[in-house]
Amino acid sequence: MADEPVVLGVDVGGTKVAVAAVNGATASDLVQRPTPVSSTSELLNGIEATVREAITATGDPAAIGVGVPSQIDYGRGTVETSVNIPLTGVPLRDELGKRFGVPVFVDNDANCAALAEAQLVDDPPATHLVMLTLGTGVGGGVVIDGKIFRGADGLGAELGHFPIEAEGPLCPGNCPNRGCVEALCSGTALERDATEHAKDLPRTRLGNVYGEKGTVSGPDVVSAAEDGDTDALLLFERFGRYLGVAISGYVNVFQPHIFVIGGGLSRASGLFLERAIAEAESRALPALWKRVDVHLARGGADAGVIGAGLLAAQEIGRDTQRSAATTSTEGRA
Amino acid sequence: MADEPVVLGVDVGGTKVAVAAVNGATASDLVQRPTPVSSTSELLNGIEATVREAITATGDPAAIGVGVPSQIDYGRGTVETSVNIPLTGVPLRDELGKRFGVPVFVDNDANCAALAEAQLVDDPPATHLVMLTLGTGVGGGVVIDGKIFRGADGLGAELGHFPIEAEGPLCPGNCPNRGCVEALCSGTALERDATEHAKDLPRTRLGNVYGEKGTVSGPDVVSAAEDGDTDALLLFERFGRYLGVAISGYVNVFQPHIFVIGGGLSRASGLFLERAIAEAESRALPALWKRVDVHLARGGADAGVIGAGLLAAQEIGRDTQRSAATTSTEGRA
Repeated sequence: MADEPVVLGVDVGGTKVAVAAVNGATASDLVQRPTPVSSTSELLNGIEATVREAITATGDPAAIGVGVPSQIDYGRGTVETSVNIPLTGVPLRDELGKRFGVPVFVDNDANCAALAEAQLVDDPPATHLVMLTLGTGVGGGVVIDGKIFRGADGLGAELGHFPIEAEGPLCPGNCPNRGCVEALCSGTALERDATEHAKDLPRTRLGNVYGEKGTVSGPDVVSAAEDGDTDALLLFERFGRYLGVAISGYVNVFQPHIFVIGGGLSRASGLFLERAIAEAESRALPALWKRVDVHLARGGADAGVIGAGLLAAQEIGRDTQRSAATTSTEGRA
Repeated sequence: MADEPVVLGVDVGGTKVAVAAVNGATASDLVQRPTPVSSTSELLNGIEATVREAITATGDPAAIGVGVPSQIDYGRGTVETSVNIPLTGVPLRDELGKRFGVPVFVDNDANCAALAEAQLVDDPPATHLVMLTLGTGVGGGVVIDGKIFRGADGLGAELGHFPIEAEGPLCPGNCPNRGCVEALCSGTALERDATEHAKDLPRTRLGNVYGEKGTVSGPDVVSAAEDGDTDALLLFERFGRYLGVAISGYVNVFQPHIFVIGGGLSRASGLFLERAIAEAESRALPALWKRVDVHLARGGADAGVIGAGLLAAQEIGRDTQRSAATTSTEGRA
């Protein structure tokens, strides 16, 4: 396999573009450059330049997988909507395919992360996995039979937008629902609830933060909770309870063997994960719960690159090889 | 194809066993006999006898698909739990395989019904479909890429057990959740709510029913609502609203092109379906909602037989053939 052309993974984030050769769960020859966001053409040129830089080290690739923080019509390879980087409406697969002359595959970064997580469990790779990414919003990815599940047109697996509290708060994201997972278990929801709560409690720690800044941020709540502040702990108790409600639903529906919690908020998991798991355990169908392992994301900073590369490898039919190689010798981070 | 061995579909219900030759969405040579439920061996003998009766008309089949009202470990072909007929723990696939000497495939009847519904849409058959069956409980089936989705071990797609009202009522089924779809949108939930409601309203229609019988049944509520009784109409308004909440979540997660409402309660759909669709439309992600068609189940009494036959045809690799034949000439009921 050493002489075979590599598969490249590309992770286009809001601040940096990362490119690496991907084999199993291993990334090598990593190149990272800032993401140009001033215009679509600058962005496309920036992605191209970063990929070409990687190619000088790896040689021409067999295929390129690209993860972007955007909603993708996977069948067409186009970007439906993109809030953080200027890609809305761009036929990204074809644009990049023209530039490199090799097969390019483009997917949502949460889908790529889920694929990386499936590779990062104990051997063999997980065939059925659900991943929730808790950040400003709530994203997710679902792996079924070892492949990313996308729905009929690649717009599915919107795991942040299942309602779990029918008359709950309006979703703070670009979604008309009420009480959906993102409306209750996102960074934005946490800040909304903390701010509302602090307004009525002027002489408390969160009240003081509100008095100074007119708002309470996620990091404010995390820091207060870590210091044992009761108001902040109660906010996380509620957060964990709702997360557990959502986990129970997704376990019952997808019956995964692996359930992964990722995203920026998972760094504060000590404040809510135990509560979430207890809630999910009390609610999920027992036969399904006993078959699932819930854990934090294992992928590091290069999980997005790895997932994008795995996607491309699967699409060109290299994943059987890859799984075999991974199982025997390498690929565990 | 006329000389090829047929594929048989078998629908084992609580009251009758139905067997027919299945080709596309068409069932022929139907045989129906009462379901013996006195013991497992009587039941297995009864299924065998009914299938043999069909075989005298059709000749030896290429494969047999069997739908049962039970929870199935599809990979092993065994029955995990079975409430209405005595099959719990039975290795049904192997038991029937031994008796007939041809490949046998066993699945949950709701999964089989979903597969039949995918075949019953306008050409071509639906690749991505979600079906909710509203009866005593709430079941469901999911078709992804034209195949039944089952989760890692065949225990998934428990669509009745996603919580949509976190602190709602306890599930009346064999499920520890609160506020799940079955706890709000099942016949049992409707009877529970109607009875509770009627207790406090002695001089109303539902109150009179309660006074006479000590309970209010589903048919009592349906009949009162059809006569314009306000209390009954309000119960269905709530039922429809919750159903819409659930539909919005499943559209966001599975992104199907077809959403089917079936089950015994769907016969009263005039009382809740319009409300449910309006609620779902106001909540689902617009890009996904505009790509889905929500309709009542189209399969008739033979849908279970057809779905079971389609499953067997798929498993022996005959579904490409079948879809082609169906598209060109036949197979629409």
